[in-house]
Amino acid sequence: MGEKSTEPASRKVYLSGTRPGVRVPMRGILLKSDPPLRLYDTSGPYTDPAFTPDLKFGLPPLRKQWILSRGDVEASPGRGLRARPGKTVTQMHYARRGEITPEMEFVALREGVSPEFVRDEVARGRAILPANINHPESEPMIIGRNFLVKINANIGNSAVSSSIDEEVEKMTWATRWGADTVMDLSTGKNIHETREWILRNSPVPIGAVPIYQALEKVGGKAEELTWEIYRDTLIEQAEQGVDYFTIHSGVLLRYIPLTARRVTGIVSRGGSIMAKWCLAHHQESFLYTRFREICEIMAAYDVAFSLGDGLRPGSIADANDEAQFAELDTLGELTKIAWEYDCQVMIEGPGHVPMHLIKENMDRELAVCHEAPFYTLGPLTTDIAPGYDHITSAIGAAMIGWFGTAMLCYVTPKEHLGLPNKKDVKDGVIAYKIAAHAADVAKGHPGAREWDEALSKARFEFRWEDQFNLSLDPETARAFHDETLPAEGAKTAHFCSMCGPHFCSMKITQDVREYAATHGLDETEALQKGLAEKAEEFKRSGAEIYVAD
Amino acid sequence: MGEKSTEPASRKVYLSGTRPGVRVPMRGILLKSDPPLRLYDTSGPYTDPAFTPDLKFGLPPLRKQWILSRGDVEASPGRGLRARPGKTVTQMHYARRGEITPEMEFVALREGVSPEFVRDEVARGRAILPANINHPESEPMIIGRNFLVKINANIGNSAVSSSIDEEVEKMTWATRWGADTVMDLSTGKNIHETREWILRNSPVPIGAVPIYQALEKVGGKAEELTWEIYRDTLIEQAEQGVDYFTIHSGVLLRYIPLTARRVTGIVSRGGSIMAKWCLAHHQESFLYTRFREICEIMAAYDVAFSLGDGLRPGSIADANDEAQFAELDTLGELTKIAWEYDCQVMIEGPGHVPMHLIKENMDRELAVCHEAPFYTLGPLTTDIAPGYDHITSAIGAAMIGWFGTAMLCYVTPKEHLGLPNKKDVKDGVIAYKIAAHAADVAKGHPGAREWDEALSKARFEFRWEDQFNLSLDPETARAFHDETLPAEGAKTAHFCSMCGPHFCSMKITQDVREYAATHGLDETEALQKGLAEKAEEFKRSGAEIYVAD
Repeated sequence: MGEKSTEPASRKVYLSGTRPGVRVPMRGILLKSDPPLRLYDTSGPYTDPAFTPDLKFGLPPLRKQWILSRGDVEASPGRGLRARPGKTVTQMHYARRGEITPEMEFVALREGVSPEFVRDEVARGRAILPANINHPESEPMIIGRNFLVKINANIGNSAVSSSIDEEVEKMTWATRWGADTVMDLSTGKNIHETREWILRNSPVPIGAVPIYQALEKVGGKAEELTWEIYRDTLIEQAEQGVDYFTIHSGVLLRYIPLTARRVTGIVSRGGSIMAKWCLAHHQESFLYTRFREICEIMAAYDVAFSLGDGLRPGSIADANDEAQFAELDTLGELTKIAWEYDCQVMIEGPGHVPMHLIKENMDRELAVCHEAPFYTLGPLTTDIAPGYDHITSAIGAAMIGWFGTAMLCYVTPKEHLGLPNKKDVKDGVIAYKIAAHAADVAKGHPGAREWDEALSKARFEFRWEDQFNLSLDPETARAFHDETLPAEGAKTAHFCSMCGPHFCSMKITQDVREYAATHGLDETEALQKGLAEKAEEFKRSGAEIYVAD
Repeated sequence: MGEKSTEPASRKVYLSGTRPGVRVPMRGILLKSDPPLRLYDTSGPYTDPAFTPDLKFGLPPLRKQWILSRGDVEASPGRGLRARPGKTVTQMHYARRGEITPEMEFVALREGVSPEFVRDEVARGRAILPANINHPESEPMIIGRNFLVKINANIGNSAVSSSIDEEVEKMTWATRWGADTVMDLSTGKNIHETREWILRNSPVPIGAVPIYQALEKVGGKAEELTWEIYRDTLIEQAEQGVDYFTIHSGVLLRYIPLTARRVTGIVSRGGSIMAKWCLAHHQESFLYTRFREICEIMAAYDVAFSLGDGLRPGSIADANDEAQFAELDTLGELTKIAWEYDCQVMIEGPGHVPMHLIKENMDRELAVCHEAPFYTLGPLTTDIAPGYDHITSAIGAAMIGWFGTAMLCYVTPKEHLGLPNKKDVKDGVIAYKIAAHAADVAKGHPGAREWDEALSKARFEFRWEDQFNLSLDPETARAFHDETLPAEGAKTAHFCSMCGPHFCSMKITQDVREYAATHGLDETEALQKGLAEKAEEFKRSGAEIYVAD
């Protein structure tokens, strides 16, 4: 936790905006040849050598002055800030008024687009900028399909496992490897305290599912939940600074029977809790009937909605069924209502969905939810591989990201089996960075391919160190190379252990090119002239440049 | 190597055909409830408790009598068999004559289709049944897009690493986890001997790239290769029993300049060797000019062509370029020629291809190669993750498998970095079994979803042991579960460490269903009646069935 060093060849660099404090962190990778490559950086101050982390103190409140200077907040009865009566403090509200906030400017620099574009996408509801006024430590980021695809990492202890320290460490670890947001799904003891530590030390927006804490407050008995307990929990978490809430308002009483014939019923925790409540009371869910009151709370702190998919499929047999799509329709209606309050909204989706059914999810979401950003778990494309569901789901995540999902919720190898440890968190984040980047490339996102090209160029030129440093996980790339060829000399060798010197196709290609260059010809020309004598010359010059062992 | 035991809950079962020796192995998984599930089994006799493996002796020559009884072979001057003069011994030849061979019957039982269908697909060239008459140890299998998607695992030592024993062990290990074929890509010393051990002990078809051995024979100097040396190598390997050869006949002299502006040039070893030869001699490749002579050799042993993609892209920047597709056109022409000789043909493809360019590869291959089966490496959908290219490529592999690729060549985590060890081989095979199965499901292959459903049903019913046993990798699934909840009791618990007892959505769903069942209603009805009194009753009956800790 709080590892200070980034990769040896990485340097923390900042892009400055026009407003005070708009300093956007980037990771610059120094290369042996070629100028440094700059990458999006989610790791926060922890990777800045000028910063001394102290968990008890928390991160500096980067956004505090921006928030206060807008003059629309007041101290709340708790410890936090809230909107002054009659004020709305959401980024959507400012955007719709035509304002470009420092948060929007920050995001524009981070994404390499204009501040006006950021503002317009937020105003339109096609992107969200999660930024609770009580989480000033977070570095602004944006979730929308016209920006880089984001990933979320879930952490959180349960009644049977793990401690607060472990969870804070998982959070910093997840952001170090590239998590854009982190959800704290704690369900055990100390939910409030765990969340507090995570928030004060998190450089990324934090999401939560308030119904979990509400359920703890009624001793785990779903039927004893009340609107009042839930409302108080929303306020408690909003005052702590949670940036987005998963709220399962679309699990309507009449949809529950639609799950009766499913192979795996209801697999969302929040969905099943509310289903139980609805059945026990034979009433419509208060998450639905009180939705406007919820909007008022969200608007007073700028907590974004993550409208939960309580009826998502838990097996491929249940994918794209009536229950799932009925709920999606309701989430679309609720989106419109939330927008009346200038609340930011994203829509949760997928679960287990076979490849041929993925696109329908995206297309329907865009249509019925008015282009609000989609935020999907995976989807897992098969059920047969517990222990490897980061892979079954990276397949689906990459595809749905390409199709337009704005944020991908990771799945770790422990999914279905247990709580993820640090290694699982890293494996999940890496698999999802791959999926998100593959999606960015497929979408033709400007700049996405630069990274691939820099790495492939380093590979082709046998700049091994550059290749490692440009890797998503430099440590692992280097360790794998060194397993068979540990010597320092192998880092400059024009081959690796895969093929050895004779068979290295890239070395051979380079021989061919070098020959052409030495002879003042490009090889295209050399060949197109079709001169057999050139071939003779090449042969005579001794085509082997490399002396094999 | 030669592990005798399968998973504790697995039993080797055989389906018998009409012909002597047609005994098709399947893996039967015993379940606590539900009848056993039968899965395709590539592990060979090693997982049959009745078999005592002895590497020096090799596997029993299952197909020997079938081959001899056709009366069309003779002893060759080497140690092997070959076609009698004027005879063709390929499965395509028999199929075109209308014959159903025991190999075809075996495959039909294995795939759950009619023998006539197998015959017709082979006759049409839309599927291949790789079955060298000198590899009678192999269990017949089929590669074609109207059958289950297959996966290949590459093994092989190089000049700088690994021994024969290790390679044989990797082969049995790969087939244990589900490799349908294995390619021996050895390039170091002892190529012939390594291959001999692999062949004699392999229950799956073996592929090779003869140019590697030919190059060793000329001391690694590509320009010294000759047709005669290559031809002799083909015959040597055909007599040993290699079931398919990668032959890069499509790397034409005029295509080489098309690679000059690429980011990563030519990355296929065979492709670069032949490019070097072509340039050095300024002549067309003998793999192209001697293609008909090659066909005669292939037909005399039933070695299938795997027409190599010597110009496949080695970075996403080079995907779908002129060089790649020019070669593909040539492979299509050569397919027609090979079919004149009744030779079986598959076409090699992809490499590094971003998601949005994958489908074009499949569509063009079907069009220009006359529906010959496509056999693709990955494709890798991004270049940025060395150390995780089993994942970058599983994404592409699943997609192209869905689109119609018949066999997926795996990529291990060591790709680009070093030679795979046993763990890497397993990780690669598992990632590709996931991709292949996800593709089968997406294609709607009959029976593919059965496996997913059996597992999800076990999961929903908290049959933990069944869930583990049904997993692609039972050991890992069990170990991950036990990491947080090792007690035996946890294997029957109605929750896991992820959510703990209060929050287990599946437990809650079951509570709801159980209530409905106890009260003689299905919950759909209960709800649709809309009776509030039912809800009251549910609440009074104490909705908690489970007593939490």
